[in-house]
Amino acid sequence: MYIGRVKGTVTSTIKHKLYTGHKLLLVARLNLDGSESSTYDICLDDVHAGVGDVVVVLDEGGSARQVIQKRGTGPARAVIIGIVDAVELSGA
Amino acid sequence: MYIGRVKGTVTSTIKHKLYTGHKLLLVARLNLDGSESSTYDICLDDVHAGVGDVVVVLDEGGSARQVIQKRGTGPARAVIIGIVDAVELSGA
Amino acid sequence: MYIGRVKGTVTSTIKHKLYTGHKLLLVARLNLDGSESSTYDICLDDVHAGVGDVVVVLDEGGSARQVIQKRGTGPARAVIIGIVDAVELSGA
Amino acid sequence: MYIGRVKGTVTSTIKHKLYTGHKLLLVARLNLDGSESSTYDICLDDVHAGVGDVVVVLDEGGSARQVIQKRGTGPARAVIIGIVDAVELSGA
Amino acid sequence: MYIGRVKGTVTSTIKHKLYTGHKLLLVARLNLDGSESSTYDICLDDVHAGVGDVVVVLDEGGSARQVIQKRGTGPARAVIIGIVDAVELSGA
Repeated sequence: MYIGRVKGTVTSTIKHKLYTGHKLLLVARLNLDGSESSTYDICLDDVHAGVGDVVVVLDEGGSARQVIQKRGTGPARAVIIGIVDAVELSGA
Repeated sequence: MYIGRVKGTVTSTIKHKLYTGHKLLLVARLNLDGSESSTYDICLDDVHAGVGDVVVVLDEGGSARQVIQKRGTGPARAVIIGIVDAVELSGA
Repeated sequence: MYIGRVKGTVTSTIKHKLYTGHKLLLVARLNLDGSESSTYDICLDDVHAGVGDVVVVLDEGGSARQVIQKRGTGPARAVIIGIVDAVELSGA
Repeated sequence: MYIGRVKGTVTSTIKHKLYTGHKLLLVARLNLDGSESSTYDICLDDVHAGVGDVVVVLDEGGSARQVIQKRGTGPARAVIIGIVDAVELSGA
Repeated sequence: MYIGRVKGTVTSTIKHKLYTGHKLLLVARLNLDGSESSTYDICLDDVHAGVGDVVVVLDEGGSARQVIQKRGTGPARAVIIGIVDAVELSGA
């Protein structure tokens, strides 16, 4: 799992029917210092995240499937499972 | 899942019988700014994508199998699940 | 599996209900020479690790699920499975 | 899946019995321009590939297991599933 | 799967009970030219490898579980499945 920032959305008219009705969000992975890395994922969303939100992304297919199958969504490799309130870092 | 551009096709006469009759597409992964990265995947196709199309790639074996097993195809790590109409990015 | 150092915690009020009541720990991956890399994971914890601890992280979804399902936790890609006492390296 | 070139073989007398009688091939991953990258995998072989052959490698454990279980082989993360005749690239 | 060299051991008193009684080995991944990369894994061992041995590592959770479940071990992402006698490389 990693911390990311929702950067935008992907629109796709022609898509596999399992994804019909589901938003695809572009999420940039954040580094430990809070800066954005160049790595991103297209994620399904389980917590109604919006553009600009800092989120927790579960980036493993099997686990992601467990989360979203509870809501009738199709297969996924990455899903947003939480909105981040705070990250507390120690120098230890 | 990531955004990619279909770059070409791979022809293979001698191949595992599960792949007989299926096109193998070369897809370059795109960066968040729309440029092509040097990373690619050979993908199966579920939406009749063509060379030059910008597509959504599902890049996890377990999920990819769920998508393609509905069509009698063999195992895969990556499958094209949608053709991209638009990517909307926010600076937020 | 890799060796990491617990760097801090992530607070998330709005999160998938499978994660309710579970701490999310930020763990930086350590290099072989003991220095911290820039790579991190958000991990679930199975051994009551604290900030500053050097830990063993199991970073594969299927295996991580096997460990945590014994405790009623939700899906995960990474879980802390041990606290490191010593790393013995040979130059061989 | 990716395109690779078979570079050599690995000999191992003491090995897990599931691999007894199976050749382990060293395959270098090729870049999109056909050059060899520094990344490699040790692959099981399902199509009788030889050293120097350009091949299609299926690099995901779950899918690889589906392919090789049809032949009584042990677990694998990567398996050669085809020999490449041609790669057709478009500048589009 | 990749080729690695056993570099040392990790001692952990407080660990998940599935790992009790099992050695955790530090294995550095080798490049194709035989040099050590900076990448490593903590591996379970299925062939009694020792420090300094060059080994074959199976680095995928699902496959690794298949190997070790035959011996009553816990979940793992990486397991040593063979000791390397020789690597034969061709310039082809």
